[in-house]
Amino acid sequence: MAPEDIKAKIESANATAVQRVLASKPHLVDVKPAIEVLPGMNKRSIFHAGPPIKWGSMCGPMKGAVVANIIFEGWASSWDGAVKLVEEGEVELSPNHDHEAVGPMAGVISPSLPVVVVKNEKFGNVNYGRVVEQKVQFGAFDEEAIQSLQFWKKVLAPAFAKALGRLRSSGSIGIDLKSIMARALYMGDELHNRPSAGTALFALSILPSLIESGEDKERLSQIVKYFSGNEIFFLCLAMAACKATMNAAKDVEYSTLVTVMARNGVDFGIKVSGLGNQWFTGPAGMVKGLYFPGYGTQDANPDMGDSAITETTGLGAFALANSPAILSLVGGTAQDAFNYTKQMREITTTLNDTFLVPILDFEGTATGIDIRKVVKTGILPVIDTAIAHKDPGIGMIGAGIVNPPMEAFKSALRAFASKYKV
Amino acid sequence: MAPEDIKAKIESANATAVQRVLASKPHLVDVKPAIEVLPGMNKRSIFHAGPPIKWGSMCGPMKGAVVANIIFEGWASSWDGAVKLVEEGEVELSPNHDHEAVGPMAGVISPSLPVVVVKNEKFGNVNYGRVVEQKVQFGAFDEEAIQSLQFWKKVLAPAFAKALGRLRSSGSIGIDLKSIMARALYMGDELHNRPSAGTALFALSILPSLIESGEDKERLSQIVKYFSGNEIFFLCLAMAACKATMNAAKDVEYSTLVTVMARNGVDFGIKVSGLGNQWFTGPAGMVKGLYFPGYGTQDANPDMGDSAITETTGLGAFALANSPAILSLVGGTAQDAFNYTKQMREITTTLNDTFLVPILDFEGTATGIDIRKVVKTGILPVIDTAIAHKDPGIGMIGAGIVNPPMEAFKSALRAFASKYKV
Repeated sequence: MAPEDIKAKIESANATAVQRVLASKPHLVDVKPAIEVLPGMNKRSIFHAGPPIKWGSMCGPMKGAVVANIIFEGWASSWDGAVKLVEEGEVELSPNHDHEAVGPMAGVISPSLPVVVVKNEKFGNVNYGRVVEQKVQFGAFDEEAIQSLQFWKKVLAPAFAKALGRLRSSGSIGIDLKSIMARALYMGDELHNRPSAGTALFALSILPSLIESGEDKERLSQIVKYFSGNEIFFLCLAMAACKATMNAAKDVEYSTLVTVMARNGVDFGIKVSGLGNQWFTGPAGMVKGLYFPGYGTQDANPDMGDSAITETTGLGAFALANSPAILSLVGGTAQDAFNYTKQMREITTTLNDTFLVPILDFEGTATGIDIRKVVKTGILPVIDTAIAHKDPGIGMIGAGIVNPPMEAFKSALRAFASKYKV
Repeated sequence: MAPEDIKAKIESANATAVQRVLASKPHLVDVKPAIEVLPGMNKRSIFHAGPPIKWGSMCGPMKGAVVANIIFEGWASSWDGAVKLVEEGEVELSPNHDHEAVGPMAGVISPSLPVVVVKNEKFGNVNYGRVVEQKVQFGAFDEEAIQSLQFWKKVLAPAFAKALGRLRSSGSIGIDLKSIMARALYMGDELHNRPSAGTALFALSILPSLIESGEDKERLSQIVKYFSGNEIFFLCLAMAACKATMNAAKDVEYSTLVTVMARNGVDFGIKVSGLGNQWFTGPAGMVKGLYFPGYGTQDANPDMGDSAITETTGLGAFALANSPAILSLVGGTAQDAFNYTKQMREITTTLNDTFLVPILDFEGTATGIDIRKVVKTGILPVIDTAIAHKDPGIGMIGAGIVNPPMEAFKSALRAFASKYKV
């Protein structure tokens, strides 16, 4: 094919892919134990964030999270027992993204952990998200950390499942996450590190069904207080909604659109629409940001988590101008936030038609990263993220801004050139 | 006194007054029928927005609102009957602000209408606010309009009163409105025309007590849906909180700080800390903004309502840079929003230490309008506001930006010069 024909084919493929991103309609439809819904999950599977990685190569906080989930499942009761099990090959490790799922930070999902079930009503694909909490996902595995998973499993997940069942039985397709996300962007969220408005709007969306489903008043009150006290909650739903959105853009031949950006704390990996399920990786970066008192760069683990699916969809740091309040967490000035949001237009395919930035006179967020543009301009996507301590058992120590490695985009472009004989 | 001594005395008085503004801690403590709590309210009183005005001089929408409340009270059953009652002197009309209260748009409060009770925990003053709804306050007086008052009286007010009673009996001083307002400013509210986040945060704050107070599930679900469908609700609480805040700065001798800005749809009035309860007025302006389809400037009533108490406190249009989403309602660009927010610093006493603007790198909103600075610079306060149709019975037709008349500030300054022999 002549170079200009190839270029036209790529442009057309990217237009198709990004149109599928824009047209997606993710709805929360259920909450179910992972084993019942995640494709390829077995009784001894543990799924994790980012590209594939072997136990021996995992970073401290991801090891801590794997151990926490083994204890949570009752397969072992201590660090040593859990490690022994993994080292004997009794536990199957695999990336969330290879099983239609996403998880924050270490992102570890084990069979009995309930996941949120998000259906893309426009295209039919169903994707899954792991709850956000402040302990296990950062590598803690003590009693208190395990309790945070138990609270999700025993209190929140069954209540949400009951409420969603009631909604479905009344003919609803579930809770419209895209609508909540669009409104949350008008309310200072960027929907990665700051999903505060999303959490409040989601709470008000699900509460009527929760109330009508007959949840008792102590439990109901506890759940409302949970929403007030855990503003980060909605990140789980934003991530699953973004995954369901980006998966609709998968497998468009000739498309150079990035459909996945994810990190396991050691490697950063991307997937590209026209390149199937292959991962393209490079080393995960160190996050530049603000640390909690007593911690510093020497304590930080490299970039980790599937939460960069929000940036992949044009949210998170791509929408930072919407969310200046987050700068007190991640550092930087309002001008930086404007700059990031505008600069991302240089490496993306379109401006979003639903996710708008009021302070930029209601222009859309930059959506649909194109590997060609990243390599050509040298501009890397920007991601805002939490920072985990590099050792297991400690937790979150700060938050900031990070870029993926250029290597991942370059190797994807080489693979593209090779596959499509460009 | 020498001119420099007078100046020092004024500066010191203003510092005292604005310090009381900053130190105020408004809490929602109760919801009660107006007759039980409003000082000076009689069985046949009707209080209204803005400075004093006689029935014959009232604008169309305020007349409509007075008639609506007369029908609501059962004193008459029609426009003609209600008008007759007023014209025969059977109804006592008086401004909300002269009775420790505030009300949106026409702002009409009648004896059996419940009002929110806000206590300034720092200084002990108690102030009152009228519910926000979309009908009566804009001059509608039909069956549907009266129903919106009935819903407040019969459903919301008793439920909130019960929940607040439960909070108080558990030792709480009520719901901390200042904390909600500060957080709402981080979430895209300016707390006058856009209190969306405030409404959601307030809902999550009161719901645990509502639930625990044993409200039945149909009623609870209805209330949650009310919060979701009436994002403007929190304006009522923001206004009462601002009134409780500004009243703490009243009656500081030598202070030129504005403690009230309010409009009755004909006149715009202000009160000044060092000038007691006297009103200083000028003609209410026409609002420049956006109209709903089918309406235009020829249909508009002049500026109306006590809601400019939010601007008086450094919120509303003074915080417009925080709330670019409101521009789709009131018109203008993001740059206009920045300009308003910054320009107000030229006529105010300080930057707020709690109400911050993240997009201006977390600087505070301009707080404490000084009549001297307004007159000297010629810069008028900016107010964002809804627009009512000039005829009774129609309602809201748009929203926009308006300024007070310079005359009010000049006549206040003349009175100040005369009282203090400057």
